[in-house]
Amino acid sequence: MPTGLVAFAAATAVVGGPRDYRADLDSRWTVAGRPNGGYLLAVLGRAALEATGQPHVVAASAHYLRPPTPGPVRIEVDVLRSGRTVSQVRATLRQDARDCVVALFTVGGLAAGPVSWSEGVPEVAVPPRDRCQPVGPVGPGGFDVSIMGQVDLRLDPACLGSARGRPSGHAELRGWLALLDGTDFDSVALLYAVDALPPATFEIAPSGWVPTLELTAYVRAQPSPGPVRVVQRAQLIDGGRVDEVCLVWDGTGRLVAQGTQLALIRPA
Amino acid sequence: MPTGLVAFAAATAVVGGPRDYRADLDSRWTVAGRPNGGYLLAVLGRAALEATGQPHVVAASAHYLRPPTPGPVRIEVDVLRSGRTVSQVRATLRQDARDCVVALFTVGGLAAGPVSWSEGVPEVAVPPRDRCQPVGPVGPGGFDVSIMGQVDLRLDPACLGSARGRPSGHAELRGWLALLDGTDFDSVALLYAVDALPPATFEIAPSGWVPTLELTAYVRAQPSPGPVRVVQRAQLIDGGRVDEVCLVWDGTGRLVAQGTQLALIRPA
Repeated sequence: MPTGLVAFAAATAVVGGPRDYRADLDSRWTVAGRPNGGYLLAVLGRAALEATGQPHVVAASAHYLRPPTPGPVRIEVDVLRSGRTVSQVRATLRQDARDCVVALFTVGGLAAGPVSWSEGVPEVAVPPRDRCQPVGPVGPGGFDVSIMGQVDLRLDPACLGSARGRPSGHAELRGWLALLDGTDFDSVALLYAVDALPPATFEIAPSGWVPTLELTAYVRAQPSPGPVRVVQRAQLIDGGRVDEVCLVWDGTGRLVAQGTQLALIRPA
Repeated sequence: MPTGLVAFAAATAVVGGPRDYRADLDSRWTVAGRPNGGYLLAVLGRAALEATGQPHVVAASAHYLRPPTPGPVRIEVDVLRSGRTVSQVRATLRQDARDCVVALFTVGGLAAGPVSWSEGVPEVAVPPRDRCQPVGPVGPGGFDVSIMGQVDLRLDPACLGSARGRPSGHAELRGWLALLDGTDFDSVALLYAVDALPPATFEIAPSGWVPTLELTAYVRAQPSPGPVRVVQRAQLIDGGRVDEVCLVWDGTGRLVAQGTQLALIRPA
């Protein structure tokens, strides 16, 4: 298992451009040897910002074709529209000349003032960080979750029954997330945050890998410095697919990102 | 205002291919003269199915660059991966050589058996169809909502306060949707359904047009024949943008589609 800390900025760095970028997928930002889907979206988002000069990712949508391995990849970026307030970008991550992830981005500015209006955002109570349970880089049965050596993810013990052999029966995980390199979350890091938690379905149904088919992220505001609070919920398993919604709040309680994904789920 | 009924299949028809398709955006599937965003996604989805031979749209994500006008458009389709169970497609809608909508699709089969598991899907009570209020093609102040001449949308009167000058104060709209040409919903028509309702924010804040930046749809099952039940909710307005979640159930109560969008919202 690869060890040692790598800065998030370095793990997601892209070089080249303005249309063809190169990146080196880090072997530590992986689960079972495969780069995490949110991490891949962050790498693509970095290229989208580089290509446009816009400050933040506003909305990102990715479809996952085949999982790349750690190592060199190419990112082809097409700036589809350059606007004053937002620009739109198409980006494709390729390895060995094969498309692995294709994504669309709307990039631009983020909210500056206070929240205008909010209703019905779930109230999710998460215990203080020091009473949550850290998730380490070695999972049950020696399962390799290297990425947990790069981040500080602490989950509410009440939602971690499966680790004790007594699944909670609820498909919700909640906790606190920080980057171990000490940097604060920006819009690119939030693209990782919306896919950072283990599958929420582990608490209701044993399964193998839950590979993402589609991941959409909306960044709503620049987070305040420090850890973010994250909740991930599954709603429906049908036809071997599951949806998961993810919400991310900063330390001031502001909702800073929303994620939704559709993934494959197979019985263990 | 254009009148007369056009079949959904005809309004979303594409010809040509396998890479370059042509379509004719119908002047009746419009709001204020502009084709509805879900209708545009349906046209793109039709091309994605044609190009792959897959039966259903499973997941679709679109970013909206500029609104096309009714009339001829070209759709460029790239089949990125052809798989046994799902294929992935990139599709771009262009008018006068300018990109208007860019979308990604995962296409393939849908659930055949019963729902495996469900939790936390909001219970949304909608009155029977005959006690809901039809939405006509002429909105307040003569506003042109031609598309309402093509569909049978009936909303719960309790969520229609703004039409009576007393907004409900809640950003939720709920009702029943059917296609007036009598055809049942398939996965392509569900791409329209997730963007069929007026902005849920009309009940909390007067605003002008609420143009969609990003729209994601997951199709979870083939609906049973007949009208579908639809609810659309906004959660957060921040930085001049609003998110809206849409859920669609068929007549048997099965959740058949989930939509999420990020849109611009400007004070009226």
